[in-house]
Amino acid sequence: MRETFHGQLIELRDLLATMCTKAATAMRHATEALLSADLAGAEEVLAADAELDVLRDECEERARQMLALQAPKASDLRLVLSAVYCADRIERMGDLAEHVANTTRRVHPSHVVPPELEETFASLGKITASMADDLVAHIACPREGSFAELNQVDHQVDDLHAAVLGTITRDTWQHGVPTATCLALVARFYERFADQVVSVAKRIEFVSTGVTPRA
Amino acid sequence: MRETFHGQLIELRDLLATMCTKAATAMRHATEALLSADLAGAEEVLAADAELDVLRDECEERARQMLALQAPKASDLRLVLSAVYCADRIERMGDLAEHVANTTRRVHPSHVVPPELEETFASLGKITASMADDLVAHIACPREGSFAELNQVDHQVDDLHAAVLGTITRDTWQHGVPTATCLALVARFYERFADQVVSVAKRIEFVSTGVTPRA
Repeated sequence: MRETFHGQLIELRDLLATMCTKAATAMRHATEALLSADLAGAEEVLAADAELDVLRDECEERARQMLALQAPKASDLRLVLSAVYCADRIERMGDLAEHVANTTRRVHPSHVVPPELEETFASLGKITASMADDLVAHIACPREGSFAELNQVDHQVDDLHAAVLGTITRDTWQHGVPTATCLALVARFYERFADQVVSVAKRIEFVSTGVTPRA
Repeated sequence: MRETFHGQLIELRDLLATMCTKAATAMRHATEALLSADLAGAEEVLAADAELDVLRDECEERARQMLALQAPKASDLRLVLSAVYCADRIERMGDLAEHVANTTRRVHPSHVVPPELEETFASLGKITASMADDLVAHIACPREGSFAELNQVDHQVDDLHAAVLGTITRDTWQHGVPTATCLALVARFYERFADQVVSVAKRIEFVSTGVTPRA
């Protein structure tokens, strides 16, 4: 029984890691499509999001079966519950990548991002996708300090998000209100994506070390 | 044992209803503060949000104890798991009301909402808070059709959200880019709040009827 349970926990962990890899890929591809106004690329991201929804449901169903059949206690119970929490957040990461892709599709064939903000959005895409990569590693092999590190990187995302808002609200902004509002929302999708990464990292560090990690 | 469990389920349900009432109040007060540029009112909403965070944690802790001590099966297990899911979403509703209040505070003493959009934001506040009221009733006494009704109301919120985006991106917009981007984000907070309500309603209807409700 115990061995079965342990095996199922590993499967659940692998499922979370797979989901997180898909979310990282989605954000990477969504950013590429955003910066090159690539309609086909954006549509691929939109199509791929359904997989994450299915995996989330599978994760919850597996957790439910483990609870029903094995009634785990203490730290095992916490691990199962945290998997459900994390699956929900990672699915949301996919949704946010989907929102970026959706903006690209809606605005196509125009470019959403004007030249002076291309570097900023490229950085947002690179950093958030690589945060999700780091989260995959943390899910596969949780370690103390991982949350604090990702939380540090999240500050960079916050700074880039603030830089976008600064640029679009400056008097020198020449691309009009529709582009500005669109960019404000897209920048927020990246910021929220990074928030979810940090939130999952915190939860995983807590359940694996038993100590609430500090930033 | 069974009676204890049933009593604990009722407590968990009452806790969710309390959380949802607080989220409704938060959105109502946040909207009043937004429309009257009331700093003190906005700060009250911000201060109150901590309670919702505590209640969410309490909800999860109670659910964990119920799972550990009583190892519920089948529909009882689904009820406990869904309570954790719902608590998380309702806490997020509180966060979104907090974001509205935060915008009011940041922009104070200026008004965020110009006269021509006051009615739209008043409607957004009224409808979303009353969706949360309806959700309280649905939590207390789940019934078939509640999700479909709330989903219908959500379309009104989507329309109002689209109306805000339409107004701020029109050529006749006279309040500049910073106000426009700010309003785009605030309108999104209302839209996301309504999404959470619908998501909780769907889950509750599913676990109480056993049938995935249709829109």
